[in-house]
Amino acid sequence: MTKPGKFIVVEGLEGAGKSSAIATITNWLQQHQLKVVSTREPGGTPLAEKLRTLVKQIDHNELLAPETELLLMYAARVQLLTNIIRPALSRGDWVLADRHDMSSRAYQGGGRQLDEQLINNLRSAVLGNTRPDLTLYLDIDPAVGLSRAAARGELDRIEQEQLAFFIRTRQKYLQIAATEPDIVSIDASQPLAAVQQAIVRALDNHFSGLANG
Amino acid sequence: MTKPGKFIVVEGLEGAGKSSAIATITNWLQQHQLKVVSTREPGGTPLAEKLRTLVKQIDHNELLAPETELLLMYAARVQLLTNIIRPALSRGDWVLADRHDMSSRAYQGGGRQLDEQLINNLRSAVLGNTRPDLTLYLDIDPAVGLSRAAARGELDRIEQEQLAFFIRTRQKYLQIAATEPDIVSIDASQPLAAVQQAIVRALDNHFSGLANG
Ligand SMILES: Nc1ncnc2c1ncn2[C@@H]1O[C@H](COP(=O)(O)OP(=O)(O)OP(=O)(O)O)[C@@H](O)[C@H]1O
Ligand SMILES: Nc1ncnc2c1ncn2[C@@H]1O[C@H](COP(=O)(O)OP(=O)(O)OP(=O)(O)O)[C@@H](O)[C@H]1O
Ligand SMILES: [Mg+2]
Ligand SMILES: [Mg+2]
Repeated sequence: MTKPGKFIVVEGLEGAGKSSAIATITNWLQQHQLKVVSTREPGGTPLAEKLRTLVKQIDHNELLAPETELLLMYAARVQLLTNIIRPALSRGDWVLADRHDMSSRAYQGGGRQLDEQLINNLRSAVLGNTRPDLTLYLDIDPAVGLSRAAARGELDRIEQEQLAFFIRTRQKYLQIAATEPDIVSIDASQPLAAVQQAIVRALDNHFSGLANG
Repeated sequence: MTKPGKFIVVEGLEGAGKSSAIATITNWLQQHQLKVVSTREPGGTPLAEKLRTLVKQIDHNELLAPETELLLMYAARVQLLTNIIRPALSRGDWVLADRHDMSSRAYQGGGRQLDEQLINNLRSAVLGNTRPDLTLYLDIDPAVGLSRAAARGELDRIEQEQLAFFIRTRQKYLQIAATEPDIVSIDASQPLAAVQQAIVRALDNHFSGLANG
């Protein structure tokens, strides 16, 4: 029987440095000769990418109800889990995810203040027992993150939210990170080199002995 | 304050005669000088119609997980409720729906055998207290309904399911209809004229005195 792969998730507000972190982690995985499947959420399958477009689109002709947003996020997630993530892990590949379930808990639970029981019900139905082995949460002041992200170009529907929305989202991120053991918080306001060091340290600690055994 | 309108839903398997029933009901509403907003599900808003296309599409490149189907149905429903149904009822218009929540309970709960607790959680989150005043459930043997529907042309992804799927769906429809007071079951295997009579009788009974007061 193939040894199942590990599931690593990178989380954080817009502009926290997730894409940069993924480059560092990909590098680490290559150095350890590990095969990796990279995903992003929402998205990562043809249908899930269509859902990504729908939730990010700015359409002033129709209000997107917060519950709709939540359900579309989980619909995209269950497609990705079923068709990509679980098969990859079963094959023994590692999975490296740019956002996953913690984003919904933080953005829809914290930012949009949707009912936690509803979210937890969706989570248990959709995630089953596929849970990340390690989540790297890049913590950043939303004003700093948004200004980094804004430099990249036009903001999508969610990025256009008020600062208060992102402050609530960050609070929820921090609250979750404080209580769950497989989440490592990294201060993403540090210079990139320091963030990269912290990431490598977390990987070395968390997967010590595992990568080669 | 405007008196809120009433919410009428027509339910049943493919080919049961829902579209035909809607013509009869529309006629009855016009005779009573009631303003009506008609909807269909999944669909009825620009975004919800996009979701309808996604769930009905036959795409052999990607498995549509049963949970994805369920979440997309409720995502479409919350859009329709928020943007169309609730505003219409508040204005005092009547709403006439070609399928609504009972379809998800029957198809995703009965046909796909998805967890009832998950469905009930979605229902309470999405429906709130907007519940139909009257549901007309057109009961038909799936073999008869499907042969009526097939005469119309190509079958979509859901219509292509095995007979056993529709037998489970009908069982769930009947089980719900048997226990909830605002659902009237109509034997849809009768000739159209008899079905129409049964529909008008149900409307007269259910809304006696209401239509003009
Ligand atoms: N530690 C850092 N210090 C300063 N700038 C950084 C740091 N990390 C990343 N950046 C820069 O900030 C910008 C956003 O970073 P990146 O794209 O990695 O963030 P992200 O979390 O992936 O954003 P998004 O959520 O929009 O995908 C980039 O221009 C990147 O080079
Ligand atoms: N009572 C009836 N007896 C015989 N044929 C009927 C009866 N009611 C409807 N039909 C015919 O069966 C076909 C399907 O009816 P209809 O389109 O009203 O069903 P439907 O429930 O709306 O189907 P769908 O779920 O596919 O929209 C039509 O050709 C219609 O004329
Ligand atoms: Mg990024
Ligand atoms: Mg019809």
